[in-house]
Amino acid sequence: MDFKEILEKRYATKLFDGRKIPKEKLDELFKMILLSPSSYNLQPWKIKVVEDKKIKEELFAASYNQEQIRTCSHLLVFCAELDIEKNISLLEKELSKKLPEQKAKAYVQMLKEFSASMSEEQKKNWAQKQVYIAMQTTLLAAKYLGFDSCPMEGFEPEKYSKILKLPPNLIPTVVVPIGYAADKPKPKIRFSKEEVFF
Amino acid sequence: MDFKEILEKRYATKLFDGRKIPKEKLDELFKMILLSPSSYNLQPWKIKVVEDKKIKEELFAASYNQEQIRTCSHLLVFCAELDIEKNISLLEKELSKKLPEQKAKAYVQMLKEFSASMSEEQKKNWAQKQVYIAMQTTLLAAKYLGFDSCPMEGFEPEKYSKILKLPPNLIPTVVVPIGYAADKPKPKIRFSKEEVFF
Repeated sequence: MDFKEILEKRYATKLFDGRKIPKEKLDELFKMILLSPSSYNLQPWKIKVVEDKKIKEELFAASYNQEQIRTCSHLLVFCAELDIEKNISLLEKELSKKLPEQKAKAYVQMLKEFSASMSEEQKKNWAQKQVYIAMQTTLLAAKYLGFDSCPMEGFEPEKYSKILKLPPNLIPTVVVPIGYAADKPKPKIRFSKEEVFF
Repeated sequence: MDFKEILEKRYATKLFDGRKIPKEKLDELFKMILLSPSSYNLQPWKIKVVEDKKIKEELFAASYNQEQIRTCSHLLVFCAELDIEKNISLLEKELSKKLPEQKAKAYVQMLKEFSASMSEEQKKNWAQKQVYIAMQTTLLAAKYLGFDSCPMEGFEPEKYSKILKLPPNLIPTVVVPIGYAADKPKPKIRFSKEEVFF
């Protein structure tokens, strides 16, 4: 499917038919999500993949009973990663393979200073913003791969953390059920070009 | 260009060759950006399009002298819109044309309650997160349309506000110079699937 068609056809699916997305398609989706850019390439995200029916029922109750949550094939819970130091270490390993030693060291030093310059609250806001980049990749990639999705902020993060036993460094930020739609798209309503661009 | 190829070939272009993107291509880009989803469809973003050479030089100085800013064809300054009430009114106009009166009214009421429930700081964080969705659409659409882009947080928002004479309800959040690359992409470094998905 053409990129323009993907943008036009993607929509927030409110009901799925329960069919499972094949494993190969899921793997393709995951590889595409990984290609998302992020600030300093720090990729401050972790994505919990939920398939279990019982857990989905619990999350459904923690998502204002929205049917997407329990009718989807898989539920992707996008978490902001607050342990940026860990990501810097991960990146350091990769960079040291690809860059001259001095250059890799200087870059890592800059990342450490960047991380240290933020309060915990700033860190959370910064990481959460990056998560939305990966989320948009997900919505578009899903359509490209032949299935549907729904971006959702309507859920209770604390309950999600508890149900999924998430460590305190992971903050559930946005969730995306994926699967095959059992509803129909409505016409998109968008502000005009003149409203948005100036 | 295939969506997967777009994801693979897009990269943070650090130097452009100064060539201008034709007006028809820009218009296509803008239409695509408008198709981005957002929380409650509130589209809390405004995008300042900068083409003027002199203003780009001023913004260059407010962006740690990064050459993308002054060598690009156009600079898109993505602002978070804090005047959500205005966006609710805009949406109300569109909804009232497409939905039964009662349904449109109930939805608008819900939006007003949502907006009122947030502090100014929460509103800013919420709107800024949405901006990153539109930003990712932009990066991918640019590649699709045959040109390049660079997502940038490295700039001084207060100076941008002053140079561009932005009203206080618009918060410069991320900037994206677009144009034709004069550099070459480096291999992408990304965490493994096992690091990100769990």
